[in-house]
Amino acid sequence: MKAISSNGMDVDLDLAGSLFERLDRATRRGRGIVRDSYGAGEQAAHDIVRAAAEQIGLEVAVDAIGNLFMTLPGKDRRAPRVLIGSHLDSVPQGGNFDGAAGVVAGVCALSVLRRMGVVPDFDVGVLAIRGEESSWFDVSYLGSSGAFGLLDPQCLSVRRSDNGRTLEETLLERGFDPLVIREGRRLLDPGQVRAYLELHIEQGPRLVCEGLPAAVVTGIRGCKRFRTARCVGQYGHSGALPRALRHDAVAATVAFLHHMEEVWSREEDSGSDLLITTGELYTDAALHAPSKVAGETRFVLDLRSVSEDVMESIAAEARRAAERIGSQYRVSFDLGAATDSPPAMMDVRLRGSLMKLLERPLEMPSGAGHDAVVFAKVGIPSAMILVRNDRGSHNPDETMTLEDFAVGTRALIELLRRFPL
Amino acid sequence: MKAISSNGMDVDLDLAGSLFERLDRATRRGRGIVRDSYGAGEQAAHDIVRAAAEQIGLEVAVDAIGNLFMTLPGKDRRAPRVLIGSHLDSVPQGGNFDGAAGVVAGVCALSVLRRMGVVPDFDVGVLAIRGEESSWFDVSYLGSSGAFGLLDPQCLSVRRSDNGRTLEETLLERGFDPLVIREGRRLLDPGQVRAYLELHIEQGPRLVCEGLPAAVVTGIRGCKRFRTARCVGQYGHSGALPRALRHDAVAATVAFLHHMEEVWSREEDSGSDLLITTGELYTDAALHAPSKVAGETRFVLDLRSVSEDVMESIAAEARRAAERIGSQYRVSFDLGAATDSPPAMMDVRLRGSLMKLLERPLEMPSGAGHDAVVFAKVGIPSAMILVRNDRGSHNPDETMTLEDFAVGTRALIELLRRFPL
Repeated sequence: MKAISSNGMDVDLDLAGSLFERLDRATRRGRGIVRDSYGAGEQAAHDIVRAAAEQIGLEVAVDAIGNLFMTLPGKDRRAPRVLIGSHLDSVPQGGNFDGAAGVVAGVCALSVLRRMGVVPDFDVGVLAIRGEESSWFDVSYLGSSGAFGLLDPQCLSVRRSDNGRTLEETLLERGFDPLVIREGRRLLDPGQVRAYLELHIEQGPRLVCEGLPAAVVTGIRGCKRFRTARCVGQYGHSGALPRALRHDAVAATVAFLHHMEEVWSREEDSGSDLLITTGELYTDAALHAPSKVAGETRFVLDLRSVSEDVMESIAAEARRAAERIGSQYRVSFDLGAATDSPPAMMDVRLRGSLMKLLERPLEMPSGAGHDAVVFAKVGIPSAMILVRNDRGSHNPDETMTLEDFAVGTRALIELLRRFPL
Repeated sequence: MKAISSNGMDVDLDLAGSLFERLDRATRRGRGIVRDSYGAGEQAAHDIVRAAAEQIGLEVAVDAIGNLFMTLPGKDRRAPRVLIGSHLDSVPQGGNFDGAAGVVAGVCALSVLRRMGVVPDFDVGVLAIRGEESSWFDVSYLGSSGAFGLLDPQCLSVRRSDNGRTLEETLLERGFDPLVIREGRRLLDPGQVRAYLELHIEQGPRLVCEGLPAAVVTGIRGCKRFRTARCVGQYGHSGALPRALRHDAVAATVAFLHHMEEVWSREEDSGSDLLITTGELYTDAALHAPSKVAGETRFVLDLRSVSEDVMESIAAEARRAAERIGSQYRVSFDLGAATDSPPAMMDVRLRGSLMKLLERPLEMPSGAGHDAVVFAKVGIPSAMILVRNDRGSHNPDETMTLEDFAVGTRALIELLRRFPL
């Protein structure tokens, strides 16, 4: 496979393949990929991508917190630019494509434009973003949030999960400037970015199931999570306690979760985007017993939607149901505080244009968070393309074919050629 | 309070109170009572009760495995006798009344008959049974089953949960004869026992809630328990996996347990005796996460009923439901093997007679097992009286008043006076 033709423009799959291979070789540790945020693994990836960009003839610059800009200069250097971005870090023992695919797609796109001699009306840049994964410093979107001056300065004292070094120490070691974060200084002016485009491997199996190579993202789901929900009843003898005298935390929790699944079902029927998950649920191993009615459960209630309103209304329904079912079962629920990660809708015009560029168009929400959330939040029209990935993300077995990658990258290139929309 | 009069017969509450006090003093260790099966605690209790029986003038004998018989001789020494029994051991850190109340009731009853100069037509004995609790040797009903030659000889090598000594070693240390158990020798002929009567403190809060001092037992619930039930699905991303593609072990388990509660509800409406309990339920702490769809749950399904048929039919329904709901949720349930402890119905005639002797009669099942199960199993007409107990059993806070104890004991005495029924 040498190249795939697209309206006369070829995506150089040799370049893509060789970049993925170099990234893999430089950052595979045992079975999985380790590109630690602001660590040696992420830096190795930045070095590889930067060298490729320089070879193609792109302008290269690094901002004060390490984000790498690779730019194809346009006719008007002062006009708002388009950025194609993604991150180059990975989770510990992750896969080779989560994040990197988007950066490589951007480099391949600019390589095509460069090769064709296209000089766009405005700068088009590829942005390799630092520290998107929260696995290392327990903060998501370090690089993109930091570029817009949006990070809470307290994150500087967060310690890396493995070596215990603070983010501040780590930035200094790598020659970057923690003051930017401490002072909330803005490195990137949202008014100077016309659009943000991100290609990313899919994180669920939807495209695999649909048999499609790529899809356009409608919005990135937010998450409202009751991380420390609890139901407290009373322990008792399972053979002696009639139902009417029980304060059964398991029975009440089952009734509550069953109700929430019915609520989910109704929301689905009405067309709302919603996912409800209880991934952790347990009685107390120190106190439970086969012959005891359970006196306590702990569980997580995780709500996801592209709509903040939907999450708000389901959270309110959960609180009401907990109250009602708690009194019905003579137990008390305490759902605890909800942590919030806001959803972000992708730009309607960009979505529409991308849909027209796919042979078999499909729109779907992204279940996982991406840097595009941050760009959308500061008001930059943003869009995403998901590329089929056979074995989920955040694991060593991520599988994306170069053919599918080319379908997504080709849509990016075509979209660039249509600017300004 | 000196005595409570009952048709001219006084229950000597001073004797009862003094026996309970001596038992408490001799066997309280810290907060709770420790009368270890075949250990020093149980032996101390046997010594106290035996001394009281000798003082009253009862005949005293100990069988080859330590059960203590205290007999008021009747006119015909060869006629089948009535036994009033219960156990003198306790769980670790148990209460003073579980077991002991029944033995003390028997001693008080014979003390009344003796004092009144009553010579019954046949022997009436009080039986202080060894090792009823399974906490020490992981086998229930050691003394009663052993007396009828029903113990599996393998139990001789079971080690005591605290000191690791086998049952055989423990029996030998105390001067008893393990050969009886090894050979399955019968020490007590069921044909020579006319009836078995047992008074026991209540183990649930039913009588407390009903405001009644005592109740007659309809039957002792058996237990069919799926101890190692499991639901296996697949872990996945909680934000990316649409419901239709999930293999959600928690959602499936919730649906299954919810169904079982509906089944329970229907059985209750139709008048069946049934309790269904899931006292343990948990996702895998090593693999679960707030942002993951759960790939596995483990749980216990505990069925209790006085009817073997009801338990059988509910277990069959659980297996069918697990199959159906498993396929609906794309997961697989494995309920595992069920452990069985059979129910025992109490004798209808004895129950009827006891009911007539209570001022405010109530019949209820016993949720916990008792030695009466063993006596009923070998065909001896058996009956039980439960006495109100404020704080559940098997804990240091068991609370029974002497007034309530007298109500139950008085019924026993009156029943004895009515034999042969």
